[in-house]
Amino acid sequence: MAIDRTSLIPALKNMATQLRIDSIRATSESGTGHPTSCMSMADICAALFFAEMRYDAKDPKNPESDRFVLSKGHAAPILYAAWAEAGAFDRAELLKLRQLGSDLEGHPTPRLPFVDVATGSLGQGVCAAIGTALNARRIASDYRTYVLLGDGESAEGSVWEAADVGSMDRLDNLCGITDVNGLGQSRATMWDHDMAQFERRWTAFGWHAIVIDGHEMSAILGALDEARRTKGQPTMILARTVKGKGVSFVEGKDGWHGKAFKKGEELDRAIAELEKQFVPVPKDSPAASLAQNIPKPASAPRPVEKPKPIVPPAYRLGDLVATREAYGSAITKLGDADSRIVALDADVKNSTFSDRFEKAHPDRFYQNFIAEQVMVGAAMGLAARGAIPFPSTFACFLSRAADFVRMAAISNVGIKLAGSHAGVSIGEDGPSQMALEDLAMYRAQPNYTVFYPCDAVSAERLIAIMASHPGPAYIRMSRPKTPVIYSNEDTFAVGGLKVLRQSGDDVATVIGAGVTVFEALKAYDQLKTERTLIRVIDLYSVAPVDRDGLVAAARATGGRLITVEDHYAGGGIGDAVAEAVADAGFTVHRLAVREIPRSGKPEELLERFGISADHIVKEVKSF
Amino acid sequence: MAIDRTSLIPALKNMATQLRIDSIRATSESGTGHPTSCMSMADICAALFFAEMRYDAKDPKNPESDRFVLSKGHAAPILYAAWAEAGAFDRAELLKLRQLGSDLEGHPTPRLPFVDVATGSLGQGVCAAIGTALNARRIASDYRTYVLLGDGESAEGSVWEAADVGSMDRLDNLCGITDVNGLGQSRATMWDHDMAQFERRWTAFGWHAIVIDGHEMSAILGALDEARRTKGQPTMILARTVKGKGVSFVEGKDGWHGKAFKKGEELDRAIAELEKQFVPVPKDSPAASLAQNIPKPASAPRPVEKPKPIVPPAYRLGDLVATREAYGSAITKLGDADSRIVALDADVKNSTFSDRFEKAHPDRFYQNFIAEQVMVGAAMGLAARGAIPFPSTFACFLSRAADFVRMAAISNVGIKLAGSHAGVSIGEDGPSQMALEDLAMYRAQPNYTVFYPCDAVSAERLIAIMASHPGPAYIRMSRPKTPVIYSNEDTFAVGGLKVLRQSGDDVATVIGAGVTVFEALKAYDQLKTERTLIRVIDLYSVAPVDRDGLVAAARATGGRLITVEDHYAGGGIGDAVAEAVADAGFTVHRLAVREIPRSGKPEELLERFGISADHIVKEVKSF
Repeated sequence: MAIDRTSLIPALKNMATQLRIDSIRATSESGTGHPTSCMSMADICAALFFAEMRYDAKDPKNPESDRFVLSKGHAAPILYAAWAEAGAFDRAELLKLRQLGSDLEGHPTPRLPFVDVATGSLGQGVCAAIGTALNARRIASDYRTYVLLGDGESAEGSVWEAADVGSMDRLDNLCGITDVNGLGQSRATMWDHDMAQFERRWTAFGWHAIVIDGHEMSAILGALDEARRTKGQPTMILARTVKGKGVSFVEGKDGWHGKAFKKGEELDRAIAELEKQFVPVPKDSPAASLAQNIPKPASAPRPVEKPKPIVPPAYRLGDLVATREAYGSAITKLGDADSRIVALDADVKNSTFSDRFEKAHPDRFYQNFIAEQVMVGAAMGLAARGAIPFPSTFACFLSRAADFVRMAAISNVGIKLAGSHAGVSIGEDGPSQMALEDLAMYRAQPNYTVFYPCDAVSAERLIAIMASHPGPAYIRMSRPKTPVIYSNEDTFAVGGLKVLRQSGDDVATVIGAGVTVFEALKAYDQLKTERTLIRVIDLYSVAPVDRDGLVAAARATGGRLITVEDHYAGGGIGDAVAEAVADAGFTVHRLAVREIPRSGKPEELLERFGISADHIVKEVKSF
Repeated sequence: MAIDRTSLIPALKNMATQLRIDSIRATSESGTGHPTSCMSMADICAALFFAEMRYDAKDPKNPESDRFVLSKGHAAPILYAAWAEAGAFDRAELLKLRQLGSDLEGHPTPRLPFVDVATGSLGQGVCAAIGTALNARRIASDYRTYVLLGDGESAEGSVWEAADVGSMDRLDNLCGITDVNGLGQSRATMWDHDMAQFERRWTAFGWHAIVIDGHEMSAILGALDEARRTKGQPTMILARTVKGKGVSFVEGKDGWHGKAFKKGEELDRAIAELEKQFVPVPKDSPAASLAQNIPKPASAPRPVEKPKPIVPPAYRLGDLVATREAYGSAITKLGDADSRIVALDADVKNSTFSDRFEKAHPDRFYQNFIAEQVMVGAAMGLAARGAIPFPSTFACFLSRAADFVRMAAISNVGIKLAGSHAGVSIGEDGPSQMALEDLAMYRAQPNYTVFYPCDAVSAERLIAIMASHPGPAYIRMSRPKTPVIYSNEDTFAVGGLKVLRQSGDDVATVIGAGVTVFEALKAYDQLKTERTLIRVIDLYSVAPVDRDGLVAAARATGGRLITVEDHYAGGGIGDAVAEAVADAGFTVHRLAVREIPRSGKPEELLERFGISADHIVKEVKSF
């Protein structure tokens, strides 16, 4: 730091007071919000934004810019206030907090250019921060990541997943600060102000822990210095604070969480008390113009690496290849072509075949061990900083990160989730290892693209499409080997489908995806021997679906649509097709798994749970 | 313990060898499974089942029986072997492992009477064990809970949520054992055999940690003794083990995870090596008949407390009461009537009003702080032991426990989940706090009952139904106050609905639930002034739905069905109704939230995102 930071202390204290006032005014104007949660972190926030971080308030997306993640997203008003005071936008905007027309929402979202990922579901920001820190390493930048957590959210398991990954990956470019104000929403937190509880946990998890008084500016600056000098491990600054700090009648008081000061006497008293806390700063000192003196990130433009062309698939028709295996090959090829591609694993790389990517690109492969939340959270942070991350594991275990999947939709960040071992077709391992609700999970989210390929060629093509298509996406993969049915030149699209069998005499349309495509093809062959013809569709794009293609098939086949899916009935392919064709007046006959399955051989289970070729034939004949 | 356990050591070693042989034979017969994961824990398993736990193999559900949870569920074969060796069933059954006709599935499920909750999704068993340990306290039993974890799964955040709750609740009736075999699925685990990594984490989280050699029988017995004597905190025994222990060509070798020994030479070699490890045990010593000497739990029958009648609701028509507030009152009244009712919170008790239950029944209220996974996992353990647990938080944050929700469906345990603050109607807090995919999540699961009441009376009635209805259930609750529209005498049912407005001239049926019921009623009033009549349905039971009632309404109103829901379009009420009426040939017009919402006032958001009365009116007029 060029400036002696000690000389800034009076001005930083004033900035903290100003941030408190800004937060209080904004929440009171809204009539809702969490002013006291802002007040406990005001001194830390002032130090970070006006004496520590290198950034340009007018160019928050600068790739060399330090990152700040507000994991305790309910303190959004002070985040907005800090950026406004730094010059990112007009301070008058702060009073539009939480109004329908304003991007200053109740909790931060990337609608604001200075927010990387949406927060507000506690314990997630610190996972995203792992991702932004990993990204600095990926692009060889010296930017640092700061993440501010609440003490209450430290009970979330995801925080400790992030703690493990942070220390394992020796992320010394990452600095956490826990605002230990001792009060949760409904009562004192688990450990109140027992700082040793925090210190011994973070130390045990391999972080450099520093306990400070979070309202002592020199201590905050000292700890940030120490963090910057600490090598080989991340730092967690544990700041003892007072909730509602600065306004005597709420300081450390229970019952003030998520409560705005009432406009009028209550608000006036609070503001008056704070205004008395301003201290004199000589007008000609650098401290008088904190916002002007924020160190800027490196401005030299970074050479943009142009992705190379992707090598097209090279499978032979009829080859038996599991889509999960095609996944491993496909992301490796993408990684060869584009350095933005990264892969994340949760100790199943030999089942998802992401170990192929690791072998080819070890520096862009991130092992999280069995910790799906931080895997997906870190992917969100990586994606927010320009990487194209493919986190993969068994599809059922991605549900461990369902809340991250939800927040990724809100953030609209381009994570490319891949779930293997979908459905009863995995066989003997039994229901705990079978994803049968994953399509419902992703399909429910507005921003997700959902693919479900049946063979290696379509898998490889769809994975390439996922990588280049903006926003979050999910690809569902199967365990069994399936024959290659597409030629290497076949093309696929978001919202597409393939008609695999058709004639002018089709009596019904059978719509499958993944393993059930082959059941549908078997049913076709069987029915054909009895001179009954059906149309067979591979619905590889489950969200969005090709409405026109489905309606056309319905019209051509007497309105008889049968969906067959290795998924529970609720929320999957049946529902997706039903909604698509509803306006055209068509309904859908759904073959799906309708009870908890069990262990057995794959083909036995397809039969037992109603989604085999025989069941399709029976359904067609029932018309 | 009546018998000097030292004298049992040779026999226990033999039992461990036998369990290894049983596990290997079963997995080889199946051709799939995880024998090496069984072998590392065989000595621990022998000690637990034949020298430590009090249980009756013929009466595993005995309420006083010690509990054993196999958190590393992939080691199921040795669990089955232990129960078979103890006399629960014929050892010959073991060879049917993973066959469709056998309940000895790839991972344990409660289809087996000695399994409390399904495991196989790692990091969950230890949360369930918190619940069975809490249950012992609830029923004032001295039974102990033992839970065996893998080292790999210790990376799961849920494990640390459980660790916090276990120490906070001072569960000295809980003993964990971590089988530190150093190898995960795809590689060495995060900490390999660095036992200090485990020890400092568990110690930091407030557990009594004991590091032992997990193949040294006297050390295992000593640690179990020490755990039993440790008061005021749970114990974690950290057992250094070797994966594949007992068979030299797999011991500690990578690449053997989830691999059965090939029948023939490979299997024969393994068995031969193990058989050489049997040591002589004098035939007349008590050690020769370990299974006969398992200490039985107390057999005195426990007085069954008969639930008292539930006081009926006492609301007045038109009263403004949020359903979340009705929830707080309803569970409190249930708790008054029935000591099996317990409530679990994640630091939002003042928002879900579960603080009312806490006030009335503090000993049956379990605070988990902001840790939804352990909250739901502990509820699973409690439910498995006879309690009727109501875990509640914001509906969106229950998605943090989505994988537990899934495993609860597989377990078919009676957890009664309650999610508040559903939908855009929460207003200013913004999308991170809005559950808009929760109905999709629960509806996808086969075993769940899903309710969504619109007023206080129906909420109270449905909560009572949830409590008595078997299996898992979910109730969705709203933030805003809504008027009471049902009389205290109205009745409700699983799979029911209420027709709120009807006539012989209805041109369409509008189906709402929760807050949209009132939008539908407003639309009714508005249309009526224009002499258009509509049928209005409150679909309070979302799963199952009243198919006949919906079809009848469709028939009576020209087949024009409109669903309106404060939920995303995928997987919710629209899809539920569409599937129900599909066979009758009807389709559904869906009004639902179709993009990521934002902060604003509730009524502004209902309008902006397409689910207000005005949108309903427009939709009706479009016919």
